[in-house]
Amino acid sequence: MKFAPLLSALCLFSLCAAPTVAEEQKPAPAPNGLEIPEGFENWAVISISHRLDRESMRVILGNDIAVKAARSGQTSPWPDGAIIAKVAWTETSEEDWPAAVVPGKLLNAEFMFKDSKKFAANGTGWGWARWKGPDRTPYGKDASFEKECIECHAAVRHRDWAFTQAATFR
Amino acid sequence: MKFAPLLSALCLFSLCAAPTVAEEQKPAPAPNGLEIPEGFENWAVISISHRLDRESMRVILGNDIAVKAARSGQTSPWPDGAIIAKVAWTETSEEDWPAAVVPGKLLNAEFMFKDSKKFAANGTGWGWARWKGPDRTPYGKDASFEKECIECHAAVRHRDWAFTQAATFR
Repeated sequence: MKFAPLLSALCLFSLCAAPTVAEEQKPAPAPNGLEIPEGFENWAVISISHRLDRESMRVILGNDIAVKAARSGQTSPWPDGAIIAKVAWTETSEEDWPAAVVPGKLLNAEFMFKDSKKFAANGTGWGWARWKGPDRTPYGKDASFEKECIECHAAVRHRDWAFTQAATFR
Repeated sequence: MKFAPLLSALCLFSLCAAPTVAEEQKPAPAPNGLEIPEGFENWAVISISHRLDRESMRVILGNDIAVKAARSGQTSPWPDGAIIAKVAWTETSEEDWPAAVVPGKLLNAEFMFKDSKKFAANGTGWGWARWKGPDRTPYGKDASFEKECIECHAAVRHRDWAFTQAATFR
């Protein structure tokens, strides 16, 4: 029993150190300093997509400014303050309805932050960031990772760099 | 100029009669009396799906009770008060990225309302309802339309009648 105090102390330490939802650490910022928006999982839907070329499924969410702009067609350009989130998963089949393709493993959460002044230097007026997988690891070794995002989105430069067009709810 | 007062009166009448977002009529209730939940377009996402057998895309949203239950895996059974919304669109291709399948025309908005007492009589504990297209026309001639919903969902009777499993955000 002489180890009891030590064991108690260890147990107490473990309890204190155990992460809880409330204490959960915020993911590290992206290499360009952008931070993952808190609570984006609860943002409203702008649209969805199924990338047949990547075998992945996506939901595109927006903060209030982005959703309002998208649903009213005010996206040429998108207003400053808009944030668009694209969450991607591997594709899989619904276990009881195999013809339905549904999200599998979480791949990443990508964000576009519109601020025409703050992000004028990269030529787009948007800040770009991506976090990988359930651990939400920031993507990119240094701030030059933005070039990858911008090169791909150059296909929609004429639509203020955003692929997503709002799905209609009525 | 003698028509001016009449014209003014007509203009005023037109302005009053013109529908605005605030005045927009609520859709008619479903034949079983259920009403379309106001503001469901802004509910958080539970999951998405692409029905290859129906060439349609869907987003599955939930009210707060449903989202909390789905994301914490408390869906055996789903709690009373949960409402699940499934919005379906035809599939189309993203105009600047053809390999991406995206929502086209709005098909319908379908709902499941969980109340184990109120909806015990139909054998599921859920109330069922569907509104069609942008005009949000209630589906079904009389309350027996619920049978169609239930027959299809019988495949997931063992999962409290709901196909959707929560997509993971972390």
